Amino acid sequence: MTDAPSHVQQNVDFPESEFAARLEKAQAAMQATELDALLLSNEPDVRYFSGFRTQFWQSPTRPWFLIVPAKGKPIAVIPEIGAPLMRTTWIEDIRSFPSPHATDDGVSLLANALEGLSLIGLPMGRESLLRMPLRDYDRLRAKLHKADFVDVTPLLRTLRQVKSPAEIEQIRHICDIASKSFGNAPQLFREGQTLKEAFRAFRLELLTRGADDVPYLVGGAGPDGYSDVISPPSDQRLKDGDILMLDTGASLNGYFCDFDRNFAIGTASDTAKEAYRTLYRATEAGLKAARPGITCAQLFQVMLAELGAQGGNVGRFGHGLGMQLTESPSLIDFDQTVLETGMVLTLEPSIQVTEETLMVQEENILITEGAPELLSHRAPDELPILT
Amino acid sequence: MTDAPSHVQQNVDFPESEFAARLEKAQAAMQATELDALLLSNEPDVRYFSGFRTQFWQSPTRPWFLIVPAKGKPIAVIPEIGAPLMRTTWIEDIRSFPSPHATDDGVSLLANALEGLSLIGLPMGRESLLRMPLRDYDRLRAKLHKADFVDVTPLLRTLRQVKSPAEIEQIRHICDIASKSFGNAPQLFREGQTLKEAFRAFRLELLTRGADDVPYLVGGAGPDGYSDVISPPSDQRLKDGDILMLDTGASLNGYFCDFDRNFAIGTASDTAKEAYRTLYRATEAGLKAARPGITCAQLFQVMLAELGAQGGNVGRFGHGLGMQLTESPSLIDFDQTVLETGMVLTLEPSIQVTEETLMVQEENILITEGAPELLSHRAPDELPILT
Repeated sequence: MTDAPSHVQQNVDFPESEFAARLEKAQAAMQATELDALLLSNEPDVRYFSGFRTQFWQSPTRPWFLIVPAKGKPIAVIPEIGAPLMRTTWIEDIRSFPSPHATDDGVSLLANALEGLSLIGLPMGRESLLRMPLRDYDRLRAKLHKADFVDVTPLLRTLRQVKSPAEIEQIRHICDIASKSFGNAPQLFREGQTLKEAFRAFRLELLTRGADDVPYLVGGAGPDGYSDVISPPSDQRLKDGDILMLDTGASLNGYFCDFDRNFAIGTASDTAKEAYRTLYRATEAGLKAARPGITCAQLFQVMLAELGAQGGNVGRFGHGLGMQLTESPSLIDFDQTVLETGMVLTLEPSIQVTEETLMVQEENILITEGAPELLSHRAPDELPILT
Repeated sequence: MTDAPSHVQQNVDFPESEFAARLEKAQAAMQATELDALLLSNEPDVRYFSGFRTQFWQSPTRPWFLIVPAKGKPIAVIPEIGAPLMRTTWIEDIRSFPSPHATDDGVSLLANALEGLSLIGLPMGRESLLRMPLRDYDRLRAKLHKADFVDVTPLLRTLRQVKSPAEIEQIRHICDIASKSFGNAPQLFREGQTLKEAFRAFRLELLTRGADDVPYLVGGAGPDGYSDVISPPSDQRLKDGDILMLDTGASLNGYFCDFDRNFAIGTASDTAKEAYRTLYRATEAGLKAARPGITCAQLFQVMLAELGAQGGNVGRFGHGLGMQLTESPSLIDFDQTVLETGMVLTLEPSIQVTEETLMVQEENILITEGAPELLSHRAPDELPILT
């Protein structure tokens, strides 16, 4: 692909001021720690500072880099095939290399751009990813042997977990689309249908109502709950008495919702109804407690207290979301992150219903100065039964 | 999530014999190089040897590991939340850890499983990815300081790029679905429609015809071609004379198609028609040449020769595909991979049409002992015009 001048298409999702504000906050934090640059290589980090959005990341062939310097605008070091799209963003300094390349897939160009810097920050901690071959990373460090490479996971996490009004608007919109799609459940799901059919119907509903994509749609069905919560759909047929759960991360302009809903097919056992009520109460408690100043660990404990013994062994009860299906922080006993206005979270209590089944219930919320704003339309307070 | 016994759902995409054959080939190659184990962490590598398939990889929170030992079946070292699904696969040794964890996200359990081994292979080369935080990788190496970690990219690439009959069947099926979806173009695309509307209509068509998902759908439109080939759709409206191109990687049971189609809206310029014919001729030449024994570099040159000066500066003309949208090998001047029966490739010549536009044309093929099998239905030999 040549690096030819492009028709300038406006594919950017936000005005320049959005990216300028993100950069300003990052550079303020960098100056406090004397970082010379951030080196970013994975999709959400690159997109966060550039606005560069493409599904081309599906291809593992080429590496992509964005450098956030201590002063000035970010520098893109990317394959030539991406230069026309990058030129539609606010990034001005775009350095492109032919890729794939026989011997040097951008490493020399990247090293050149970082030459002379002393302290280079990369995300190396929880939930982070270096999206380049390990060998090329070793080559880069050898070329920059005078520089120190340090972890900037906390810096990026602090920045990204508080959403701007423009980001919140995107998440609010996709949550609304997913809520309305779930609202059409009586027309979509029925006894005798396979899970594959049910999931396909729901995916079509989401897209028809305006979702760009449905990168995440998992779930299960069974009497008194389901055996796991991350499976793709099978040819299992929905039976009377099954509890059907679908959990979706649909996306709009690169932002996600992430919540689930439960539906009983035909009838529901008292066990399932009671489990649903317990989960509903736990979420209510979470909604009441989710205010600025509380820690994630505390919010976890508030929900756990409502679940009793059934909720004792279940991992986390929610997480951040936005550009990714799941983001920092985690609602879990060890996460001491203090909630702030502008954070977008899932509340996601889960319980063991029988030895073989569990149930989950999930909402998406925005932390505000007062009560949290529900971004998903609140699930009904009793298990809905599709008849 | 507790590690409770599950309802055994049959979510596996292939019989055990498929995975046993993959393992046997891997272990034969490992013994030749005295490797004690492969350590795999990214989605396609883990799935290739286990059959573990879930969209939960969308969440960056948790690491997942599969160890392929020199003898015996693979060992899964995974978060507890994935154990029920992993138990539906052929993997028997499943070691799970609570995740996210305050201090040890599987690193100790993984080190324990690899304890005492001398030579551990990881993919570190072209197109590879270590899907775990760098800090945890450093911790792992410190715990296993007596072991050597070496690159096994060539080994995995050699294995994965030749597809089994069962894999080919999946790819053939999704290519057929996408071909029929493109065949319905006259009902889907029209003047005045925005690119977003056109793309949404096509995504719905793919899903309605049986695709599980559409992880990749990009393209563009313009007179005499488009400015780039990786953009998401914009609000740009299709005009008379535009060439609309959609490039899709739809998936079925975890296998991809990857090809594009061009359509003229209303009318087409002679320039666009001629560019299309040139691309068609280049693909014909590629189809004729794509036999076992030829190298990827030679196949690249065959197509380049048909393109003349317009094709001089364009990167690669195709690649492998299967569990990922793009896989090894690359049809490019430096890739000396020799074609073998069972490889699935894209042929994807591209040309610069005007200073600002290019055009592409893509087919998916299976290398056989004779002429390649077209997995995508061959594009028409003249630019189709939607009127």
